[in-house]
Amino acid sequence: MTALTLQNAIARTEAGRARAAELAVAMNIAIVDAGGHLLHFSRMDDAELGTVDIAIKKARTAALFRRPSAAIGEDSQPGGPLYNIESTNGGLVSFGGGLPITDEGGRTIGAVGVSGGTVPQDVTVAEACLT
Amino acid sequence: MTALTLQNAIARTEAGRARAAELAVAMNIAIVDAGGHLLHFSRMDDAELGTVDIAIKKARTAALFRRPSAAIGEDSQPGGPLYNIESTNGGLVSFGGGLPITDEGGRTIGAVGVSGGTVPQDVTVAEACLT
Amino acid sequence: MTALTLQNAIARTEAGRARAAELAVAMNIAIVDAGGHLLHFSRMDDAELGTVDIAIKKARTAALFRRPSAAIGEDSQPGGPLYNIESTNGGLVSFGGGLPITDEGGRTIGAVGVSGGTVPQDVTVAEACLT
Amino acid sequence: MTALTLQNAIARTEAGRARAAELAVAMNIAIVDAGGHLLHFSRMDDAELGTVDIAIKKARTAALFRRPSAAIGEDSQPGGPLYNIESTNGGLVSFGGGLPITDEGGRTIGAVGVSGGTVPQDVTVAEACLT
Repeated sequence: MTALTLQNAIARTEAGRARAAELAVAMNIAIVDAGGHLLHFSRMDDAELGTVDIAIKKARTAALFRRPSAAIGEDSQPGGPLYNIESTNGGLVSFGGGLPITDEGGRTIGAVGVSGGTVPQDVTVAEACLT
Repeated sequence: MTALTLQNAIARTEAGRARAAELAVAMNIAIVDAGGHLLHFSRMDDAELGTVDIAIKKARTAALFRRPSAAIGEDSQPGGPLYNIESTNGGLVSFGGGLPITDEGGRTIGAVGVSGGTVPQDVTVAEACLT
Repeated sequence: MTALTLQNAIARTEAGRARAAELAVAMNIAIVDAGGHLLHFSRMDDAELGTVDIAIKKARTAALFRRPSAAIGEDSQPGGPLYNIESTNGGLVSFGGGLPITDEGGRTIGAVGVSGGTVPQDVTVAEACLT
Repeated sequence: MTALTLQNAIARTEAGRARAAELAVAMNIAIVDAGGHLLHFSRMDDAELGTVDIAIKKARTAALFRRPSAAIGEDSQPGGPLYNIESTNGGLVSFGGGLPITDEGGRTIGAVGVSGGTVPQDVTVAEACLT
């Protein structure tokens, strides 16, 4: 398993910020390692302060469960199999904007979490961080 | 951006308490700065103890997201785009009673949070704190 | 047991703020009831943000243990009988600035917590809130 | 009061990382705004995972008290006037490595927190972030 490097995280963040600038939205971009520990974080000027924690929690959610944060949300609804799972692990975020980062073998080596725009905008920026 | 002063927060709180007295409901009124830090808090006699934290969290929610707390609630319902966002930022409150305080340029310089009555009553008192 | 009223808490807070103004120090003044629940809080302009939580925790400490916060600190030192008690109850503060408020029969009906200056200044302002 | 920009935070972080590279130590560098909210974070490859939280808390401590984190530590020792203050504000760090960032008028506009080496190394890197 290849570990994420800081250099790689910076490159991913810059790709995400470029996409956010195209959308003209101030975004937070968080990158965590496979263990969910913060590797890099960047808040664009004028982003809402409440979205700092959300970006980090989206990344942690995607890393700790090795799937997009939105996939958790499908199962955490009322009546669903993971109802209210958001209150575990010090707080998860189960809507879109958190995506796992995988190596060539498909193993999760970290995750990116983006917050600051609408959920579709957040997802678009997160996807830009994966390429 | 003008910062909220204590004197201004006291005046807003007194306006809110006067409105609460008209409604004959014991209210908590919290005022935070733009960063969500508590500036002033006041609990009217006989208010329910559980509403202290709610008033403070409503104010923090409105400040950190620069919008009424109820606007968060519209999107945080089951199936909504921000489902269970309430578990972030140390706990948010997404029903009515939290309103941002803006300066002449429309920038959020703080927020008020009110709790103790029905939600419509809380909103009415919060609005009285804005004038 | 007489309960603290909001009116009484405001009067105590104003007495404290007058004393703080004499000292020319920006203070936070928190008043809690006998159960440690926040009743009134006020932050003077330019007080350090980190002292908000300290003022509230001093008041809670004094109310929950019915003694000055500094009295806890005497026993919480290394080797002392209450070593590191500060990590209980969601966080206590064991240095000066928290004082119980008692009724005529000597029963604790609440507490005041002050933070923002040196500890002796905080204690002086807290004492002004008791008279 | 001028606010810190992301561009400024990145420049400070790069200056700090350059100094850390000279010392051949893997460091975490956190930068927060005046309200203690995270603005930028970067973990160098191979830094100890436990130092992520320490770097962030050092920065928050310096911002919320507008002084070097080590200045808190002078007073928080056993028998000192601020003994165990570290348990407030969601956790403070009171040893060296957190430094306030001030504007031309001397007002605190944010802070930097560094962790990963010895405390003197952390302080050296934090100082490099101020220039």
